[in-house]
Amino acid sequence: MAQTIVKVGVVGATGYAGAELLRLLVDHPQAGVVAVTSRGNAGTKVSDLFPSLRGRLNIEFTAPDVKQLAQCDVVFFSTPHGVAMAMTPELLKAGVKIVDLSADFRIKDAALWEQWYGMPHSCPELLEQAVYGLPELFRDQVKGASLVANPGCYPTATSLGFAPLLKAGLVNVDSLIADAKSGASGAGRGAVVGTLFGEVAEDFRAYAAAGHRHQPEIAQTLSEMSGVQHDLTFVPHLLPMIRGIEATLYAELLNVDADIDLQKLYEDYYAGEAFVDVMPAGSHPATGTVRGVNQCRIAVHRPQGGKRVVVLSVIDNLIKGASGQAIQNMNLMFGLSENTGLQAAPVWP
Amino acid sequence: MAQTIVKVGVVGATGYAGAELLRLLVDHPQAGVVAVTSRGNAGTKVSDLFPSLRGRLNIEFTAPDVKQLAQCDVVFFSTPHGVAMAMTPELLKAGVKIVDLSADFRIKDAALWEQWYGMPHSCPELLEQAVYGLPELFRDQVKGASLVANPGCYPTATSLGFAPLLKAGLVNVDSLIADAKSGASGAGRGAVVGTLFGEVAEDFRAYAAAGHRHQPEIAQTLSEMSGVQHDLTFVPHLLPMIRGIEATLYAELLNVDADIDLQKLYEDYYAGEAFVDVMPAGSHPATGTVRGVNQCRIAVHRPQGGKRVVVLSVIDNLIKGASGQAIQNMNLMFGLSENTGLQAAPVWP
Amino acid sequence: MAQTIVKVGVVGATGYAGAELLRLLVDHPQAGVVAVTSRGNAGTKVSDLFPSLRGRLNIEFTAPDVKQLAQCDVVFFSTPHGVAMAMTPELLKAGVKIVDLSADFRIKDAALWEQWYGMPHSCPELLEQAVYGLPELFRDQVKGASLVANPGCYPTATSLGFAPLLKAGLVNVDSLIADAKSGASGAGRGAVVGTLFGEVAEDFRAYAAAGHRHQPEIAQTLSEMSGVQHDLTFVPHLLPMIRGIEATLYAELLNVDADIDLQKLYEDYYAGEAFVDVMPAGSHPATGTVRGVNQCRIAVHRPQGGKRVVVLSVIDNLIKGASGQAIQNMNLMFGLSENTGLQAAPVWP
Amino acid sequence: MAQTIVKVGVVGATGYAGAELLRLLVDHPQAGVVAVTSRGNAGTKVSDLFPSLRGRLNIEFTAPDVKQLAQCDVVFFSTPHGVAMAMTPELLKAGVKIVDLSADFRIKDAALWEQWYGMPHSCPELLEQAVYGLPELFRDQVKGASLVANPGCYPTATSLGFAPLLKAGLVNVDSLIADAKSGASGAGRGAVVGTLFGEVAEDFRAYAAAGHRHQPEIAQTLSEMSGVQHDLTFVPHLLPMIRGIEATLYAELLNVDADIDLQKLYEDYYAGEAFVDVMPAGSHPATGTVRGVNQCRIAVHRPQGGKRVVVLSVIDNLIKGASGQAIQNMNLMFGLSENTGLQAAPVWP
Repeated sequence: MAQTIVKVGVVGATGYAGAELLRLLVDHPQAGVVAVTSRGNAGTKVSDLFPSLRGRLNIEFTAPDVKQLAQCDVVFFSTPHGVAMAMTPELLKAGVKIVDLSADFRIKDAALWEQWYGMPHSCPELLEQAVYGLPELFRDQVKGASLVANPGCYPTATSLGFAPLLKAGLVNVDSLIADAKSGASGAGRGAVVGTLFGEVAEDFRAYAAAGHRHQPEIAQTLSEMSGVQHDLTFVPHLLPMIRGIEATLYAELLNVDADIDLQKLYEDYYAGEAFVDVMPAGSHPATGTVRGVNQCRIAVHRPQGGKRVVVLSVIDNLIKGASGQAIQNMNLMFGLSENTGLQAAPVWP
Repeated sequence: MAQTIVKVGVVGATGYAGAELLRLLVDHPQAGVVAVTSRGNAGTKVSDLFPSLRGRLNIEFTAPDVKQLAQCDVVFFSTPHGVAMAMTPELLKAGVKIVDLSADFRIKDAALWEQWYGMPHSCPELLEQAVYGLPELFRDQVKGASLVANPGCYPTATSLGFAPLLKAGLVNVDSLIADAKSGASGAGRGAVVGTLFGEVAEDFRAYAAAGHRHQPEIAQTLSEMSGVQHDLTFVPHLLPMIRGIEATLYAELLNVDADIDLQKLYEDYYAGEAFVDVMPAGSHPATGTVRGVNQCRIAVHRPQGGKRVVVLSVIDNLIKGASGQAIQNMNLMFGLSENTGLQAAPVWP
Repeated sequence: MAQTIVKVGVVGATGYAGAELLRLLVDHPQAGVVAVTSRGNAGTKVSDLFPSLRGRLNIEFTAPDVKQLAQCDVVFFSTPHGVAMAMTPELLKAGVKIVDLSADFRIKDAALWEQWYGMPHSCPELLEQAVYGLPELFRDQVKGASLVANPGCYPTATSLGFAPLLKAGLVNVDSLIADAKSGASGAGRGAVVGTLFGEVAEDFRAYAAAGHRHQPEIAQTLSEMSGVQHDLTFVPHLLPMIRGIEATLYAELLNVDADIDLQKLYEDYYAGEAFVDVMPAGSHPATGTVRGVNQCRIAVHRPQGGKRVVVLSVIDNLIKGASGQAIQNMNLMFGLSENTGLQAAPVWP
Repeated sequence: MAQTIVKVGVVGATGYAGAELLRLLVDHPQAGVVAVTSRGNAGTKVSDLFPSLRGRLNIEFTAPDVKQLAQCDVVFFSTPHGVAMAMTPELLKAGVKIVDLSADFRIKDAALWEQWYGMPHSCPELLEQAVYGLPELFRDQVKGASLVANPGCYPTATSLGFAPLLKAGLVNVDSLIADAKSGASGAGRGAVVGTLFGEVAEDFRAYAAAGHRHQPEIAQTLSEMSGVQHDLTFVPHLLPMIRGIEATLYAELLNVDADIDLQKLYEDYYAGEAFVDVMPAGSHPATGTVRGVNQCRIAVHRPQGGKRVVVLSVIDNLIKGASGQAIQNMNLMFGLSENTGLQAAPVWP
């Protein structure tokens, strides 16, 4: 029986998320990579830049060209912000579906986007049709989407962790805190002093405590879930490891005396989800247990039976926080089984 | 001019904090190590266990013996809980001063101690005279103390971070959260699977979210500072690095509209303190900048000018969180300049 | 079309190589795990010990029992030495095939084995029939084998690196040096101080410079290849990383004036091998490019065109150096395509 | 009693070796930093670039200016090659002593230098008067020197390891191999992809196997020691850690039957040396035991009593391999006790 093979183009696959996207596509049984573009690396074999792909992907980078990309069924953007919005309108017109791993279409409010990203948005008219690609929350919309805004890594871990509490209306929406920690790959592959080995190893620090671009993105999703406009305190930190995000989430119960089975709430909410694992009561999920896979693991605690709920949420920032989720979205957009190409077990230790 | 040389005994210096204590003592110009005890290593040269001390400390471990230790001016305990309290009464009687790096004398309430540490306390009558050795908060008491309970690593970072806010009465005492992260040396040098390289490297996780022994210790200190009985939510995490603690602290202002200069509050509070560095506004202290030294660096933020204050506090868990603070206490107890032997600059990177 | 499904038993899968073996088996389309034994963990769910396998392997550890294991088509031993040789004779008699990841059947000379492993060999009569499972060198024997001795990690990287030189008779067999470096997972998951994070991280050292158990194993394979009895100098080192082996190999050319195309020699020798990648001239293979996969990457250098050849060989010690190679052997023994279940791309970074 | 205080200038202290140089100078009782220059950071406080020096060094970077530097007693160059040779002639004329941590004056043969460093040498006439600052080999010359070429990190570890064998004439000078491994700080603080955390962590590889700039430098020193022109094979590797070099050295005994006590040879050779520690027979020195200090630890092995000697040599690449050795040279040049400011114990773990 002939299988659908989705023709895939990747724009800008020269960073860590791009490398992982190519790895997952190479192992995907119903996708074929037909174009990988990079202005700076045109003419270079992809496997020369990424020796881990030697023998797996025999293709060269080409300069980005809308005409060539228009031959694809889907184009992934793994680029800095500003690139996807420049090419997306024409590709959509040509009937190509888009999964944008950058931030261009994540924020519905163009003015807010421009404030945080410091440039004008070139196609605000597409923001409404863009679907926020967190399938566990917006699966039906993703299925029918032509343009998916793939969520940021911190927002994925945080939103999945808070969702059951907010949907159930159990917590004070002004009490939310996300203390999040990311491996260094989250900062990308750009040559900057701040992510040199000598700076990151054997070190730990917070950053952007006064405000980070993922804050409004998270706030937008939380507001959609709770139906109430609200804010949160979000503090990211840089971990001395390559990949993995852990978000420790704090919220205050509206009714501290209520008899709530938080464990059951979470298990019921995520029942049937292939990519969210609610761990047994008392667990502490480790980023190492989701290494290399499209998985979020969550545990929920209520220390000393008090007013405060603590949720622990881990993902691989490059997979469920970026490339794996992008594949998951592609699968939904093309009517494939949602877990196609995403079934390999985590690489541990 | 002849200098005082303090005769020092160390009980149980076979772990990481013990190794650092010996290093600092070896470099201390007014201390001399006369006895290092270890039941399991009696007869072994200390530098055979710790080759980093080759050529610096030419002494053998001896079996612990109160008579021998009674010849010392001061005895440090770097032991599991339960050991110090067994030997302390007799040593005090012999006129020896004690700095206990273990938890035996940290909690004033013996019943609470027994609940968290799972054994009866053998000398609760000493709890009142024991001074909690956080010099920045209790310097005068330390100066006159015979028995100092050296604080835990998490409590040091957390209490120093919250102190200015609590002393000024600016925050809701029910709103305190400490999201703390520690390097693996904090778990000690015991041979357990959980701290093997293969488990800790390239991994991150919370632990003891339901309750950790440092929680009541921190709560006790915060209550003393604010004058009000109160609680806090404390979640520790294990970092894939050897040393360093970062505590990200959250508190809600009582008066969100007040015009408070938090930066000045912190700078004034710690003016003149050699071992607490309030960093410039907007800073994010990194654990790497306190590596190997008795220093706490703190920054204070108020994201988006809202109700929540975020304090970032870093220490080297083995130094300001253990051995360095123990030396600082010894200096005070013996009338030495507080920073004697603690002036070396951090080793970075 | 119905596919063969090989019924697999695993003895002793509680360490790192065992965890990786289970991961590869779970993802293997023609293998089914029917028994996982562990005396100490009988009754525990495998995924409780290895949370990375949650949702992938729903089976409990059982106590090792030859009768139960005799129902399997193949049994893997991932145990300390001494265990496999105790159970293998009976299992072979029951028609079960064996892949032993331990050292019990690697050395053909029982006396030599006993000298290095410090115990009597309980079934020396099986040593002759045991096939050394390095398929690139002994593929035909593996295909017909009932008992395969899976090579050690260092021997795999070293033997594959030296093979083309030795088979071609180009180098002085007395000149061989293997300076090899392994990640900490190679030391296993036992709770010992030497592999704690605090000992291994930010540290590097040689060990066993006077003699390591893998030395006679390598010497045996090299002798078989060159047809001459010979020795080598082998110095292993411990790397501050989880997985990966790099072997830097030195050999002196017999004829320094000969015009030898070493690059072509290596490419020709390994032409058609799925799991050995000869990199372009001038390359330096990185362990990170084989992370999680059954791959050896090799580069060959002749510094300054002199008498000395330098070969660089990298593998993932847990995969091509243990569990992946074991699967490769199983595939051959059961007539499956050699790369079944071993096609996933490396996880990088 | 008034002590000599040496007035020190540092050119280019914006990298890792520069940071360590400043740390050691700050802690040095007989040195005072009067100028720290950096073209790119002029006007910035040094402690803004290196927060670890907050409270220790209250000085700003200035633009490099020979007139200002001429006020110093000694100037250290911690710069890329090419800078020191441009400023050194004038400074020498002004009576300033020079310790050059870069490569400009290490190679006696200007043509050879130009071949490896790819630029013309601007003051070859100074090469003869420049002293190679490895005090254990050339102490007397250093004492009288005005211009010291501070050795490279690999050459220090390698030359100290081979010295006793070569001075005693025991080994074949054509048999020397140095398999050396360095932490990532050795590659400097430049913003390049190759030393990003995501590239270096959990990875290991050889580099420059075909030829590295430290090879001719080592060969020159070995030739001076043995009195015979000779070569060596030198292969460097990049370790996933910040600091530390381990060199595993191989040499063949000229007389394999001779009864040589290698342990005694090494102990005698380095008797009285403060900064070289010959470890007990059977030892394996670890880089962690020299972290942060000016120390080389060495062990010598003769595996299986054969023809080959294996020497293990470790240093901290930033200290004995750079800044600490520079201070040691300064001490000698100014008649200070050789270990002034270099007595702190290693920071372990």
